[in-house]
Amino acid sequence: MASDSIKVFCPATVANVSCGFDVLGLALDTVGDEMTLTKTNSGEVRITEILGQDLPLEADKNVAGVAVKALLEKGGFKNGIDIKIDKRIKPGSGIGSSAASSAGAVWAVNHLLGTPFDTLDLVRFAMEGEKLASGAAHADNVAPALYGGFTLVRSYDPLDIIKIDAPAELHATVIHPQIQVKTADSRNILKQSISLKDGIKQWGNLGGLIAGLYTQDYALIGRSLEDHIVEPLRAILIPQFQEVKQAVLEAGALGSGISGSGPSIFALSEGTENAEKVAEAMYQVYSKTGIEFDIHRSPINPSGVKIL
Amino acid sequence: MASDSIKVFCPATVANVSCGFDVLGLALDTVGDEMTLTKTNSGEVRITEILGQDLPLEADKNVAGVAVKALLEKGGFKNGIDIKIDKRIKPGSGIGSSAASSAGAVWAVNHLLGTPFDTLDLVRFAMEGEKLASGAAHADNVAPALYGGFTLVRSYDPLDIIKIDAPAELHATVIHPQIQVKTADSRNILKQSISLKDGIKQWGNLGGLIAGLYTQDYALIGRSLEDHIVEPLRAILIPQFQEVKQAVLEAGALGSGISGSGPSIFALSEGTENAEKVAEAMYQVYSKTGIEFDIHRSPINPSGVKIL
Repeated sequence: MASDSIKVFCPATVANVSCGFDVLGLALDTVGDEMTLTKTNSGEVRITEILGQDLPLEADKNVAGVAVKALLEKGGFKNGIDIKIDKRIKPGSGIGSSAASSAGAVWAVNHLLGTPFDTLDLVRFAMEGEKLASGAAHADNVAPALYGGFTLVRSYDPLDIIKIDAPAELHATVIHPQIQVKTADSRNILKQSISLKDGIKQWGNLGGLIAGLYTQDYALIGRSLEDHIVEPLRAILIPQFQEVKQAVLEAGALGSGISGSGPSIFALSEGTENAEKVAEAMYQVYSKTGIEFDIHRSPINPSGVKIL
Repeated sequence: MASDSIKVFCPATVANVSCGFDVLGLALDTVGDEMTLTKTNSGEVRITEILGQDLPLEADKNVAGVAVKALLEKGGFKNGIDIKIDKRIKPGSGIGSSAASSAGAVWAVNHLLGTPFDTLDLVRFAMEGEKLASGAAHADNVAPALYGGFTLVRSYDPLDIIKIDAPAELHATVIHPQIQVKTADSRNILKQSISLKDGIKQWGNLGGLIAGLYTQDYALIGRSLEDHIVEPLRAILIPQFQEVKQAVLEAGALGSGISGSGPSIFALSEGTENAEKVAEAMYQVYSKTGIEFDIHRSPINPSGVKIL
């Protein structure tokens, strides 16, 4: 008999990854939410408890609730679902806090129901949660949360997602300065047009990064982590961004950039030891600012949401 | 004793490949120039003969002459070189006619001199030829001519080129309508800025194409052959472009687009049989136009310039 309850780990994610604005994302392995989902006879989707953060318990105002409802409706399921969330990713951090809840919830419910949907379907449901969170149905955080590794959203219409395994020694280090940057604000700062010249640089780098991942060429991955489009505009919203970037590169990072819409800053590096040096470099810069911050250090999560 | 003379095949190439404007190219295997280069004691670079086309014999006005001089100068070589060109790629065709001559010449001279330079160096010398031909030192044709397969120019400064092997069954079919479209004109039609939205589509597709090449996923390669940036502007310069594109897709092509700056139109397909159907579809459309045309059908060239 299948269990009626499941506890899952829902990874934090880094979207954009410098050269892949709106299309690329990667999943972290050591930071994420924990959620317990239970099939009930209530006929209702209920958020029964949220630990760690002050977020809405009303299902229609909670990203996990909205995403699960989209799944149940699409499948014609009449089940009730109780959702308990241990929210370990801080909202507004830029490492996919809402996406983790949406992705984890639909993955778990799909499992409880005997996996009627494939991963691409789950991305669609989770995107409904993202729509509630940011006003737009983005996939660049929910896709890596569900697939793991790196994900490329080749196209939204039709939705076409490619999972790319990360080289085994690739690590991400992320610093989350605890300042508030609203996703809407950091989108408004963007320009609606870009120069063709910068566009060419961007798709050259995106191609280089994808090639580097497939060939496990760490140096190529590093050279490709450039962003001539978004970083120059958004970096000013993040205190000490340039200082952190310079410090982590000097400490041996392959590259560094803004995680999602910020304020978190990510760096990629080869091997645990380098990732530790990078974390130390981030710490040195930020400990002087008086701003509270968290630092996460993680290999790339290979397969996304998982059962605990 | 190394030979003082060498005869080489210099492949035609398709630049841009829909989603890779200015960064991507591929090499053809059945169409190309043939060149014979001989080391002499004259101390001069001489174009001794050009078969097939009416092109300048003066070395400083010939792309092969300029490229070879750049190589000799960089290496401090005092040798004379005689160059005989059997020009089988029509100039202005959009399949890298000048690039084939530049690339073939420097590759052959490097071989005659005992390969003092690596392939990336040769790209730099060949780019000097491209500068003479089009006013700009592009690498998107000379790189695939020298490396073979697909090449990605990740960056021009510093020059960073990634070779990507093509899946074995991938074929290119190219129709060259014999109308004149000057590279300068087809560049002038471009806009200097693009919408961020179109940019996102482009780097999504470029990433998809690179992923498709590494994973030998022909369907993904096909889905990624979209161009929202350049094709909508340049297609109007090519008679029957939309009709050809529609016909080849119906005939089983994976995708189709403008080769380089045109007027040639390329299509990719899986397997010889499909490539033949695509060639037939191209023929059917163009045979009604009264415009003279050539059709080339070829596997992807695996390794670029080669000794005959």
